[in-house]
Amino acid sequence: MPEPPIPAQFIEVLKRPNPAVMATVRPDGTPVTVATWYLWDDSGRVLLNLDASRRRLSYMRVNPRVSVTVLDGDNWYRHVSVLGSVTLVDDTDYQDVDLLTRHYTGGAWTDRTQHRVSAWLDVDSYHTWGF
Amino acid sequence: MPEPPIPAQFIEVLKRPNPAVMATVRPDGTPVTVATWYLWDDSGRVLLNLDASRRRLSYMRVNPRVSVTVLDGDNWYRHVSVLGSVTLVDDTDYQDVDLLTRHYTGGAWTDRTQHRVSAWLDVDSYHTWGF
Repeated sequence: MPEPPIPAQFIEVLKRPNPAVMATVRPDGTPVTVATWYLWDDSGRVLLNLDASRRRLSYMRVNPRVSVTVLDGDNWYRHVSVLGSVTLVDDTDYQDVDLLTRHYTGGAWTDRTQHRVSAWLDVDSYHTWGF
Repeated sequence: MPEPPIPAQFIEVLKRPNPAVMATVRPDGTPVTVATWYLWDDSGRVLLNLDASRRRLSYMRVNPRVSVTVLDGDNWYRHVSVLGSVTLVDDTDYQDVDLLTRHYTGGAWTDRTQHRVSAWLDVDSYHTWGF
């Protein structure tokens, strides 16, 4: 599987507010997939953000390896997947979830009482299909 | 996470040729996600089918645990995820890949030289979002 830097034509897909699915791994070795918002950061990382009560956070604390598949919203037969390790950071001021919400909806995150946590994915490999 | 039987409103989503992403786990504990065709079978299993050369097959031989997230093609904020263990079976007569191809494209699988393998996913839990 190729390593970064990711070529520009795939970054272009990652930069759009596309449908995406993330996978974490449970301590029993079972993968858990769920649709997610994500944001490509020009540092070469991918931002994910979760409610602090999500069980996926506890899985990532044991095994920080995460994979995200981004479907091209115009044609889901084209997709870009990124693999790597996450660093978890409390999103105490809602800065990260606001970035994500603006990217997908144009507005800010409305629930300012929820405890949110960011997972910053350092991409160490990627694969693509359909280009 | 709830166990089957999966309620009818979610089966209805699983029955359509929707975009989907499957996850396997590499022996080093890294999840690997990729977009995929899938077919809901009325036995309560999900059919996946792969080229025999895919590395994911070797991962599933070591760890048969697989997760599939199906996005509702009309609104990807609605999704159904199914988790379980796969049984791998050679698709020597292209019967399974033909089923999948017909479901998604209306036609039969064209490459009758490739070696194909089916992964039958026995669903033991599921989760949904956005309904």
